[in-house]
Amino acid sequence: MDISTKERLVNEGMRLFGEQGYRATSINQIEKAAGLVPGCGALYNHFKSKEALLTAGIDRQLDRRRAMRDISALFAGLGDLRTELTLLCRYLLSVLDQEGEFLQVAARTPAADSARVHDAYAALVDGLCTELAGWLTACAPDLAPADARRVATLGVNALLGKRVSSIVFRAPQPDIADEDYVAEWTVMLADRIESLRQN
Amino acid sequence: MDISTKERLVNEGMRLFGEQGYRATSINQIEKAAGLVPGCGALYNHFKSKEALLTAGIDRQLDRRRAMRDISALFAGLGDLRTELTLLCRYLLSVLDQEGEFLQVAARTPAADSARVHDAYAALVDGLCTELAGWLTACAPDLAPADARRVATLGVNALLGKRVSSIVFRAPQPDIADEDYVAEWTVMLADRIESLRQN
Repeated sequence: MDISTKERLVNEGMRLFGEQGYRATSINQIEKAAGLVPGCGALYNHFKSKEALLTAGIDRQLDRRRAMRDISALFAGLGDLRTELTLLCRYLLSVLDQEGEFLQVAARTPAADSARVHDAYAALVDGLCTELAGWLTACAPDLAPADARRVATLGVNALLGKRVSSIVFRAPQPDIADEDYVAEWTVMLADRIESLRQN
Repeated sequence: MDISTKERLVNEGMRLFGEQGYRATSINQIEKAAGLVPGCGALYNHFKSKEALLTAGIDRQLDRRRAMRDISALFAGLGDLRTELTLLCRYLLSVLDQEGEFLQVAARTPAADSARVHDAYAALVDGLCTELAGWLTACAPDLAPADARRVATLGVNALLGKRVSSIVFRAPQPDIADEDYVAEWTVMLADRIESLRQN
């Protein structure tokens, strides 16, 4: 019972931060959205401040990210670059979808309002680039690390741009289905890696 | 004098919308930032509402976008795919940089708060994809329109992801210089277009 109130506060807090930004969201609003009497201070039974609730929300998100990374290990070593890239692309899109609420919180909360949110965003993107670069190097061990990193950064940004458009700006790009986008991404990255290996 | 007060109101309004979002910004705040007595209602001498000021800001942005598009016509017909792509990539990054304030306004203003902002964002991204696809087809007339559109969308998203990271989320990707990013983007798109032309 107590755990579920705490969880509800994190759920509603993150939802409101995503809609309005961190600064514009009051503790009263969070209490009300969580079904508590607004202004009763019940939030303080669980969190010492609004910032502590935000930290709990970010930590939960980091937990989920780690869980997804564990699952991505399952499709290693298939031996075929294009098959692995297809899976990786789907995986990266899933991670970004799963980060949807966090991306909204980060977009609506200026860096000056929360260093914690800013750092979590930078770690998310840097982590995805590092992860993809690592996979590329595992698939193609003769690839130079700097080449892998450059290709991986472009690959992650191509997915980030697409998902941020739909999640943060609510402007999906309806003329190209996700499946076709994944296929194009895979061909572009695979061709590039094969060409870099030849040089 | 009167024109400069109006301009100052648009400047400060867009800056504040970008920092805090449209809804969270009050007319008093805009008047104060523009050096007027807050609460005196001087804004209403120039705009009938906060929404009218936002519309003026978006219209000004659309004007600048058109001016940049006119300039991009200067580097058509160089005849070399890689040279044209390099210029196009730099051009697209400049457009996104020039849209920096607007991207912040759009990120911090949920679609529900302003359909005008939402539509302007969708038109910006769709316009860049259409423009790039048009250039690709001009460089390689045998390219199928659907192929050009798919490659262009991926290319625009790769730049959008990079710039949104630094402009909206204040998390630039410092490990890769813009120049190297442009070079990688150019090679990936040029190789892909050449491979599509052969099929």
